Amino acid sequence: MTALPSPDAAALLGAIHFDADGLVPCIAQQHDTGEVLMMAWMNRDSVIETLATGRVTYWSRSRRALWRKGETSGQVQHLRELRLDCDGDTLLALVDQHGVACHTGRRSCFYRAAREGAVVELSAPEADPKALYGA
Amino acid sequence: MTALPSPDAAALLGAIHFDADGLVPCIAQQHDTGEVLMMAWMNRDSVIETLATGRVTYWSRSRRALWRKGETSGQVQHLRELRLDCDGDTLLALVDQHGVACHTGRRSCFYRAAREGAVVELSAPEADPKALYGA
Repeated sequence: MTALPSPDAAALLGAIHFDADGLVPCIAQQHDTGEVLMMAWMNRDSVIETLATGRVTYWSRSRRALWRKGETSGQVQHLRELRLDCDGDTLLALVDQHGVACHTGRRSCFYRAAREGAVVELSAPEADPKALYGA
Repeated sequence: MTALPSPDAAALLGAIHFDADGLVPCIAQQHDTGEVLMMAWMNRDSVIETLATGRVTYWSRSRRALWRKGETSGQVQHLRELRLDCDGDTLLALVDQHGVACHTGRRSCFYRAAREGAVVELSAPEADPKALYGA
């Protein structure tokens, strides 16, 4: 059960425009290097828990459950600041990412681009997914 | 009418998982400073046109039309690279933003955060929205 919202969470929740499913996209950015690490979704409880614990918690649409980033893999995201955009429908989490953000073992999920008519990988894994998530 | 996809667009379109509305979220990041400028949506034609013209074109969900960023305001986004995330459901556009990205006249749309129980503004407008969009 998620606790009551902190004053900051209550203020932020009052300004967020959640979509019809009660979700809002959240971009995670490494606070010092500026690297965009991933994008995932938050619901009301995610916002409350993220601000209460200082560790970023998303909502997993596939598992339909709170997704405490790094709970299985250890690759947690410590929150530095949770920002909101002009029309209130997207969040930007400035984080300190422990290890890698991507389930493939890469630092960032955005490692693919199209070059010469093919989708290519721009970076290699830094960690073995089997070590992060088990076999 | 949007032209046929370029080879790069065709490759990228084959890897993008559009949502039930045929849309995919796209984060715009200033390529050199790393600043996250905004998040908006693209459909198939947006991706084709963005890669064909080198200027970022979104899909406006409110106007239900292609949104050629800067068409009215002059605040265009020149594309440096369009990246795709690990599961193909989010794009990251590395751009060179001319002027300001936000319709409020701020460089970035993510200028709000909660502090001491209130949503505060972290930056002031650099441009007058009236000058960008007319009265």
